[in-house]
Amino acid sequence: MSPCEYFIGIDGGGTQCRAQLEDSDGYVLGTATSGPANIVSNKVQATQSILMAVNGAVESSGLSIALNELHVAAGLAGANVAAAKTTFDAQHWPFRTFATLSDLHAACLGAHKGEDGILVICGTGSAATCYREAGFSDKGGYGLTLGDNGSGAWLGVEAVRHTLLCIDALTSHSLLSRNIMTHFGVVDGVDMIEKTMHFCASDFGKLSPLVFAAFNEGCEAAASIIHLGAGYLSQLIRSMSQDRPLPVALVGGLAESYQPLLGKDISKQLCVPAHNAQKGAIHYLKETLLKRNAEPPLKT
Amino acid sequence: MSPCEYFIGIDGGGTQCRAQLEDSDGYVLGTATSGPANIVSNKVQATQSILMAVNGAVESSGLSIALNELHVAAGLAGANVAAAKTTFDAQHWPFRTFATLSDLHAACLGAHKGEDGILVICGTGSAATCYREAGFSDKGGYGLTLGDNGSGAWLGVEAVRHTLLCIDALTSHSLLSRNIMTHFGVVDGVDMIEKTMHFCASDFGKLSPLVFAAFNEGCEAAASIIHLGAGYLSQLIRSMSQDRPLPVALVGGLAESYQPLLGKDISKQLCVPAHNAQKGAIHYLKETLLKRNAEPPLKT
Repeated sequence: MSPCEYFIGIDGGGTQCRAQLEDSDGYVLGTATSGPANIVSNKVQATQSILMAVNGAVESSGLSIALNELHVAAGLAGANVAAAKTTFDAQHWPFRTFATLSDLHAACLGAHKGEDGILVICGTGSAATCYREAGFSDKGGYGLTLGDNGSGAWLGVEAVRHTLLCIDALTSHSLLSRNIMTHFGVVDGVDMIEKTMHFCASDFGKLSPLVFAAFNEGCEAAASIIHLGAGYLSQLIRSMSQDRPLPVALVGGLAESYQPLLGKDISKQLCVPAHNAQKGAIHYLKETLLKRNAEPPLKT
Repeated sequence: MSPCEYFIGIDGGGTQCRAQLEDSDGYVLGTATSGPANIVSNKVQATQSILMAVNGAVESSGLSIALNELHVAAGLAGANVAAAKTTFDAQHWPFRTFATLSDLHAACLGAHKGEDGILVICGTGSAATCYREAGFSDKGGYGLTLGDNGSGAWLGVEAVRHTLLCIDALTSHSLLSRNIMTHFGVVDGVDMIEKTMHFCASDFGKLSPLVFAAFNEGCEAAASIIHLGAGYLSQLIRSMSQDRPLPVALVGGLAESYQPLLGKDISKQLCVPAHNAQKGAIHYLKETLLKRNAEPPLKT
């Protein structure tokens, strides 16, 4: 690789897209953020977000680099769905190289500098991957209706479900249920449904601080929800560590809150992520490029 | 009321709309069914379904009755949401009288012939109401994301969630998880999500026979889901029976399956519904008409 090559790593999720421009030695030259980049839920928007983030990162570097000089790798939400990834990759991209991978894989490669390791993400959604012997195995990440246990969106849904059971007098009111009712300014269940009927995962995710706040004030209802979530995350890690415990990076908006609540057997595996997912995506691209260069010449 | 008056009662839910034409003595003269009538999710479709069901019921009677001769009462899904009901009622209707009420209330009035009683519905969704001292109090019915515990849609979601946990090796495979995987022809979690990503409540509801089938073959995973559902329905009934146990009609597609699984304390309250929701809607309309006739003249 010549020293004047430029790499952009992208971490694209359901909420936003972060891009990082680096030279071939890994020095960060510029960064930018743009909109959501989930290639399953909105391919067009994801494309726009990527182009905007790349242009932004180049602009912030103050360098004049043409798009066709760039090697771009994007870790994207939804790229684990094979059909979505194939369609997305097949688009015409203005870059010298363009590669996509799952946002989870990019984060894992970044966190463990491309070494074997486990990554558990817990933000609006939840999912985990284990990188071992140059291959990934994923668990979870099935979305709010069918999975994403422990995630912010899941906490929000569980909190509202609990509140509705309290309103119906099927269980006793708690600090959590009272705080949720105050938050929405509602007095009954129909009110609550009217307020939340068009909620998406990120709207429910915004309720998760209310659950942790009630938990910290000793609310048993909040504790039982949060311990259920922590139990799921612990299970994820254990099931990925059966043969050989690997270092585990817990990332995402709720990582810090959950960390002390995971199983004691897990705590010695936990590690601080070395790098972000943008650098993980670049790592992937460099590995791919190096491999390709060792074989036929790079397709440009 | 003159003997030549005609009444149509409608039971409109998320799946279909059933209409029943009666004379003022309650003799059934004609019936018809049409499409869905949920006034929250699709007001235009609900309007069309009602008009089609009314026309169908008149046609099936072989009588020539003009629309403006008809007193129509519709028990409709979503009519418990005040804002939706107000907008819906404010439309121009071609009938002599038009009144809406919640489909749950219509079913309750039908089941108990307008007397005090409890109605629990468990089909694609779940909900309950108690009619006492001329007033209703409702519980549940909050939709698949936030409620509808025990319902067919809920059973389907729980079955798929369980299957995904099995696929991820976070819990052991069961007859249920294997049957669900065979049903969808999937081998992994991403496959499963691709198959179910656009599922609505009624799609999930169609999986409920698989859950009951596995339960009947002794599957513990299916049993634990179904007992959770039965526990919720039992709780609903108990919380409505605190002051005075009233007769309970359990209706909907899963009523028969759940009946033997409810708490033993509840079994003596259970009764067979006297009439359907269509007749319940007509009962409501006659009561309303009689009340109005006793006061100012009927607005037509």
